[in-house]
Amino acid sequence: MTNTKVTVLGLGAMGAALATALVRAGHPTTVWNRSPGKADALVALGATAATTPRDAVLASEVVVACLFDAASVHEVLDPVADLLAGRALVNVTTTSPDQSRGIAAWAAEHGVVYLDGGIMAVPHMIGQPGSSVLYSGSRTAFERYRPLLDLWGESAYFGEDAGVASLYDLALLAGMYVMFAGFLHGAAMVAGAGVSATEFAERAAPWLSAMTGGFAGFAAVVDGGDYAAPGQQSLEFSDLGDMVAAGAAQGISTEVVDVVQALIRRQVEAGHGKEGFARIYESIRNPV
Amino acid sequence: MTNTKVTVLGLGAMGAALATALVRAGHPTTVWNRSPGKADALVALGATAATTPRDAVLASEVVVACLFDAASVHEVLDPVADLLAGRALVNVTTTSPDQSRGIAAWAAEHGVVYLDGGIMAVPHMIGQPGSSVLYSGSRTAFERYRPLLDLWGESAYFGEDAGVASLYDLALLAGMYVMFAGFLHGAAMVAGAGVSATEFAERAAPWLSAMTGGFAGFAAVVDGGDYAAPGQQSLEFSDLGDMVAAGAAQGISTEVVDVVQALIRRQVEAGHGKEGFARIYESIRNPV
Repeated sequence: MTNTKVTVLGLGAMGAALATALVRAGHPTTVWNRSPGKADALVALGATAATTPRDAVLASEVVVACLFDAASVHEVLDPVADLLAGRALVNVTTTSPDQSRGIAAWAAEHGVVYLDGGIMAVPHMIGQPGSSVLYSGSRTAFERYRPLLDLWGESAYFGEDAGVASLYDLALLAGMYVMFAGFLHGAAMVAGAGVSATEFAERAAPWLSAMTGGFAGFAAVVDGGDYAAPGQQSLEFSDLGDMVAAGAAQGISTEVVDVVQALIRRQVEAGHGKEGFARIYESIRNPV
Repeated sequence: MTNTKVTVLGLGAMGAALATALVRAGHPTTVWNRSPGKADALVALGATAATTPRDAVLASEVVVACLFDAASVHEVLDPVADLLAGRALVNVTTTSPDQSRGIAAWAAEHGVVYLDGGIMAVPHMIGQPGSSVLYSGSRTAFERYRPLLDLWGESAYFGEDAGVASLYDLALLAGMYVMFAGFLHGAAMVAGAGVSATEFAERAAPWLSAMTGGFAGFAAVVDGGDYAAPGQQSLEFSDLGDMVAAGAAQGISTEVVDVVQALIRRQVEAGHGKEGFARIYESIRNPV
């Protein structure tokens, strides 16, 4: 596998990190970027710079696309679709599930083997512990090129539907952005009491990290479907009235916690107040 | 300190855990609970059961209240206020900042030394690594009884304003509830693709735990006030449009991510789109 020829299209911070890992592992690596100059450091490491997408695609059996968005994937690859036929396209550009499916359909039409990827890491984490990449689409491509994919982080495969990796990616990012908002809300709550955001972060980071230990229990309840099983904190006990009031008393917007309170209240009002907190899942899954 | 006489009022799961730690450390411990029977296990360990709050208060120089809510604190302690004079009241009942300040004022009126506490742990964690308790109110009481308080977990003190520990407690709990909602939202997003909540939790827990590593960076920006400092992910790049659309396409409620998107959009619309994501703090701190 170490002599698999690979092309990387797009040399932003992430594309450059992916290409660097490939070059370092000994793969003959061709790189291309729309604006010039980005390839210089990689060429110094041993990569070959292509001046056109056409040359870049022709150089390798695996083409990795790490571009700006779905539109830029089409813009770069539509003109060279016929050259891609028979090659594997690994697209790690951030796209929506429907966009991934659209690119997969386009690839199928042109005889291109398609694997969609969602990178759960920032560029400097590539190839380091903690980096993982989610894939869906061609199982054959995933299995065949796995040693190459594993150079970037832990590789996980979620089936032939090319949209699932993106969906999973967005679901994990949703958890992250929502957690960040919750952290910043907490920092805003204590700011009025003279607590700096840095001081709050020092306590909030280990606290929230420890509380991720609760996910498995919620998940077991969700999967089992018995929200009344014993040992759960009840929805009534989880009422966030004091929390909302304390935020309002600080003069801050309470919208971040209001939304959680709304999820809780809908279940309580439907008569489930004695059941477990995980039941707010039903508020999300089955909107009014 | 190990012969400091302590009373614990309220023997729910948390009160019982606090009392157990005291008895095990050798403190002469008196316990009381409104409904009988809850004291039996503690008496077997060596605690003394009091039959009335009056007897319970008279037995010790430190009285710990771990009751249902602020109303129950007043209900239990108002009739014995005069007996509490000169003793230290450590109230770890979950109360709002204003309720804590109200109890502190009531304590001052009656010559009671008052320390308010917020427990950042579940009962089985008491006295174990990872447990911490936040205090504010009497500095003298905090310093004098610290060896006793440290039996429950890491003790932190936030000043003479009795309301601050509650505020800090609620701020950390806000972060937790919001994170839980984000996790369950993510689980609902992938459910339609046949991913179980348990499978999602296995990936989401280490992912979000790792992402708490980002708090310190956001906090430094918030404290420094320079949202335009280099190296930040921009608000424009953080647009959650694809995430919202993917959730809607799954037929789930998107309200949990909608609120984060609204925080982002308000800053973008105010002309700060090129600045860092941490700027959503301003959307929270300065509501429209």
